[in-house]
Parts: sequence; C-alpha cells; structure tokens
Amino acid sequence: MSWKQTKLTEMLSIATPIIQAGMAGGSTTPDLVAAVSNAGGLGTLGAAYLSPEAMREAIRKIREKTTRPFAVNLQIPPPYEESPQVTRRMRKHLQSYEKKLGVPREEKSPPSISFSDQMRVVLEEKVPVFSFTFGIPEPELIKQLRDNQTVTIGTATTVNEAVELEKRGVDAVAAQGFEAGGHRGTFQSVADYPYIGSMALIPQVVDHVSIPVIASGGIMDGRGILASLALGAAGVQMGSAFLTTLESGAHPLYKEALLQTTDESTVITKAFSGRPARGIRNAFIQEMERHPEPIPPFPIQNALTKPLRKFAAKQNNLEYMSLWGGQASALGRLEPAGELMERLQQEVEDLVSRF
Amino acid sequence: MSWKQTKLTEMLSIATPIIQAGMAGGSTTPDLVAAVSNAGGLGTLGAAYLSPEAMREAIRKIREKTTRPFAVNLQIPPPYEESPQVTRRMRKHLQSYEKKLGVPREEKSPPSISFSDQMRVVLEEKVPVFSFTFGIPEPELIKQLRDNQTVTIGTATTVNEAVELEKRGVDAVAAQGFEAGGHRGTFQSVADYPYIGSMALIPQVVDHVSIPVIASGGIMDGRGILASLALGAAGVQMGSAFLTTLESGAHPLYKEALLQTTDESTVITKAFSGRPARGIRNAFIQEMERHPEPIPPFPIQNALTKPLRKFAAKQNNLEYMSLWGGQASALGRLEPAGELMERLQQEVEDLVSRF
Repeated sequence: MSWKQTKLTEMLSIATPIIQAGMAGGSTTPDLVAAVSNAGGLGTLGAAYLSPEAMREAIRKIREKTTRPFAVNLQIPPPYEESPQVTRRMRKHLQSYEKKLGVPREEKSPPSISFSDQMRVVLEEKVPVFSFTFGIPEPELIKQLRDNQTVTIGTATTVNEAVELEKRGVDAVAAQGFEAGGHRGTFQSVADYPYIGSMALIPQVVDHVSIPVIASGGIMDGRGILASLALGAAGVQMGSAFLTTLESGAHPLYKEALLQTTDESTVITKAFSGRPARGIRNAFIQEMERHPEPIPPFPIQNALTKPLRKFAAKQNNLEYMSLWGGQASALGRLEPAGELMERLQQEVEDLVSRF
Repeated sequence: MSWKQTKLTEMLSIATPIIQAGMAGGSTTPDLVAAVSNAGGLGTLGAAYLSPEAMREAIRKIREKTTRPFAVNLQIPPPYEESPQVTRRMRKHLQSYEKKLGVPREEKSPPSISFSDQMRVVLEEKVPVFSFTFGIPEPELIKQLRDNQTVTIGTATTVNEAVELEKRGVDAVAAQGFEAGGHRGTFQSVADYPYIGSMALIPQVVDHVSIPVIASGGIMDGRGILASLALGAAGVQMGSAFLTTLESGAHPLYKEALLQTTDESTVITKAFSGRPARGIRNAFIQEMERHPEPIPPFPIQNALTKPLRKFAAKQNNLEYMSLWGGQASALGRLEPAGELMERLQQEVEDLVSRF
C-alpha cells in the first residue's frame, strides 16, 4: 500500500495526505487553495478575518479554479472577559506606536465580523471540508454540517482536546504541536496554555482517538511528512511551508523573513492578539515583553493592534507586523505551490525507498 | 539496507541505533547499562553526580556484565555567578521545608564532586564512549579522549550549538528537543533558554552538520524511532523509556508516576536545580512558581535542594522529589530493558514493512 493511502485521504477524497493550513490574514488566496487541491492535497481558505461577502467571493473563485475538495477554516469564538480599564490602557499604549509610525486615523476601526454570519456562508456554499480552531462548534452546527456532507476537522493541542473533539462528532483532528506557527488552537484550558511538542503529542493523540489524526507543527518537507506518518498520523497539515509559495498572499518581505529564520527565531507571544501565537520575534514582541501592563484577551487585543499591523505592512516595516511562522520555517522555499506539492511527495517517495 | 545500519551504529560499533540516555541521579545502574548494550544498543552510565570512586566501581561492574561498547555521561560545569544573598535567602526558604518534612541534620551537606577528577576516571578507564551536556570539554580534553579512542557525543538544543560541537571536534551530536525529560543541555545562551521541538530541531540540525545526529526528546517507542530516522537522524537517545525498566534504579513510585502521566503532566522548571529541566509538576514545583524570590543558579540550587529531595525519596513523598520525565512518558512500560530493546526494534520493523 502506498504511503498516500490513509483513512484521511479516503475521508476527504484527496490523493495525497497533505493539507495546507487555513491561515488567517490574507495568505490563503484562492490561487493557493486551488493549486494545493489541484495537486492532490487539500487547500484551505483561512477565512477567520474575512467578511461573509469576502468569504463567499473567495469560495466561488476557488470553485472556478478547481473541482477538487477544499476546506474553509474559521475560529470558534473563544469565551473571554473584558476589563474596560485594561482595554483603555492598552489602547492608549498602542496610540503611542500609532503616533510614532504615523498611522492615519481612517485605519483605526476594523469592522467586527460575526461568526454566525460566516457559518451561514459555510453552510450555504456547502463547502466540502470545514476546519476550525479555538473550540468546538455547537452540536446543532455539527449536525447541519453533517447533513450538508461537509467533513469537519477540529484542532487539538492536547490528548484531552482531541478526545473531546471525537466525542462531539468531529470527523478528524489536527494535532497541533508546540512547533507550529500562528495561533495555538487550545480551547480546554485558556488560563494555562499547554505546549506539547509534535514528537510527543502525535503518538499519544493517535492512541486515544479512532478518528484520523493530522499532524501539524514543524513539518516542512518530506522528512516531516514521513515522520508524522511513522508517529501514526493519517496525514499532515502544513502552514509555514505554504506561506512562502508564490501563490500565497503573504507580504513579500514576510516571506523573505520566514526563509531567513533560524530554529531560534520564533517565540510564542500574546502581544499581537491577546492569545498565544508563534511568530518571528520582532521589535513589537520584544517591546511588549517589557511592557508592564496586562494584555487584553483575544479578540480585543487583535482588534486593537490591527491598524498598527496593517499600516506597518503598507510601510514594509517588519518590526510591527505579526510574522507568524513555525520553528522550522527556515526549511521553506519560494516556489509555486504545485511544485512544492510535487517536491514533498517526491521527497517522501525517496525516503520510503530507503527504509 | 536495514534501518539499523547508520553512520552512528558504524561509529559506535553497535547493532541498533538506540542509546539509553545517561540520566544522572541513580537510575542508570550497571545492570541497566549492560542490558542495553547486550541488547545491541548503547547503555550509558549517568555519572554526573557520582564520586570518582563510585564511577570507577560502576564502570567495572558494567564491564563484568558486558563486553559491548557503553557510554559514560557527565555534565560540563557551566559558568555561573553566585549572589551570596540569593543563596542565603533560598537556604532559609528551603529550611522551612526541611523542618516541615523533618529532614535530619546529617542529610544536609552533600559532598562536592570535581569534574576533573571525574574526567580522570573516564580517561583512565578508557571508556568506549563519552557523552556530555551543558557545554563542550576543553580542546586538550577532547584530544586526550581521541587519543584514547573514546568516541564523544555532545548535546545540542539548537542548530548553533550543534555546529559549535562539530567545529570543536566532537564525533556525534544528540539534538535535544523541547519534549525531552530532565535538564536542558543548552550552553550557548544561558540567559535565554531556547526551546525547539524535535520535529523542527532534528532536520535543521541534520542540514547544518555532517557528524551523526542523534534525536532525543519525546521518543518512546518504534514510532518515535522511525520518525527520528525519517527526519534524518542517525539514531535516537531515549531517557524516560528506560527510567521505568526493571533494571532502572529510579524510585518505584517515580516509575509508577511516570507511567501515570498524560501529555500535560510535565513542565520545564528551575525549581530543583537552578537550571531548566522537565519533570512532573508536583507540589514543590508549584510552590516554587509562587515563591517571589530568585532561584540561585545551577549547581547551587541543585546542592541546596538535595537533602530535601533525598529525604522525600526515603519517605516515599513524590511531591518533593525531582521527577524528571519527557512529554511522552505515558508511553513507557514497566519491563526488563532487554525486552524493551527487543520490542522497540520489532515495532520499527513492523512500521517499516507498512511503508
């Protein structure tokens, strides 16, 4: 049996067990999603910060470019408590940055997006696969997705979270290791974020659930893919590796920065969004490490820093952008997504033939 | 070619690329070391806290039990600065524990051990393999070891450290991932401990050195071994998996505690030794997290907490012992080391035949 045939590829009707992660923030263009799906993997639209209209438009564009399955990824809104005083003080603190960088006033109020409006689009468009993070959809929503024949993929950062996802009827689980770039998907223990490395997390999750386990965190090439399959995963989800592809909508300087990282370049920080996420340690992260006041919870801090991040991107200023990336980002390449998909599969083939 | 034949097995003249880690503190009995070596792997005497006499005796016992290669592991004394005030305050703080637990006075002054005396034993006994952590031996020492035909294995927690080890003439490098139990081997950046997960660390180290890379951190069974080889490692080093073997000298309750962990049970703490190390989060760690005063550096804190730890072990009190273990300790079993070695190899064989 080929390494490509797993219970995940069967469940998703894809040819190779490689999922491009649904990264929020504009990198997962319809071109990227379609290229991955056309190459036999599963492309994912990272729709968390898209309006319902923008989501629908992106989904339709993807469907123009591919007839293969693809996924849409959203964040389940996590519970949080706002302290108006903490928010006020952080807003004031960030205004000093905005002044320093010259952020224009019109950048300052991002529209808020409703999760239920986003979910309506997922249901109406009958997307083939719905993946999510930060929580578990309500039972009614899971039922509607099932009625729609939409396959569901949840995100777990611990064995317990994976077990909970299976119990709630989710079809597959992405086990997110400590190495992963971007936001931690943790939802059972918001106060105390558990950090489990992929090498330890994947086999333990595999032993505790019967749904397919998708390894994620630090996987950048054929070596990581075969390692994940050896650990018992039925497939992999890769984020950073796709961020630097030509089709990715990530800022060109951000792509370059990822390729220039070392294993020591990234940290997990709450500075940008109020929720732990891994990215390249730049000036904003370092300055916020020294800032003595508390950071408002997600999504408040995320909204508060958005104008700054957006303006910094326009100014090509990497020091104030959120440069999410995993601990092995240095292994990436600037290449078309289809070529990356070809290369990954060839690398696995070559390795398999050695054992 | 069999998965067992790697440049590591060739270099070490062993039959299978599995190294039992040189854990300090009494778990690596001559019986354990010899059992692993007799099973075709490389057993390691964790000699860091042994007197030269005890080291010599253990080495001779190992040689009575096996004619195969084995290793001796030591800690290269890391630089540190003592603040007498910090030490004094910590000693006072720990006295409150000693009173509470009733630690007798004679337990209170552990003899200090000289690294150069330990090294003399390594050289005089012409041990086949010398592995080390926390630093790199002086060039003269590396030369003497080479003249002795002793193979050297250093510990790296980052790509930079691995490159430095190779540059200094070390023969092989153990790449220690974030998941690993026990002390972090970090030596280039004492102020800022880098935590890189195995999935990200191993391939990046492999790409930057030409000496054999030994994966360590979170590897507990055949899945972890094959995953490590897929990532490019020439072998693995496993600690927690051997702690629970019958021959291990670890406290019986400590073995049981390891087997009852989950993926979330361990944390990296400086509480016991002044240096970050991963272990089961017990009362002492939790109480020290709340203790507002600074912890003296290694090895001061290690010496200060030794009477408490030793007495707690005698009292079967797990809450004040250092319960070092990795993030996948739950995958261990209570079994003879020879059976574990057999099982590991069989598991890899079974997996290899599936790809």
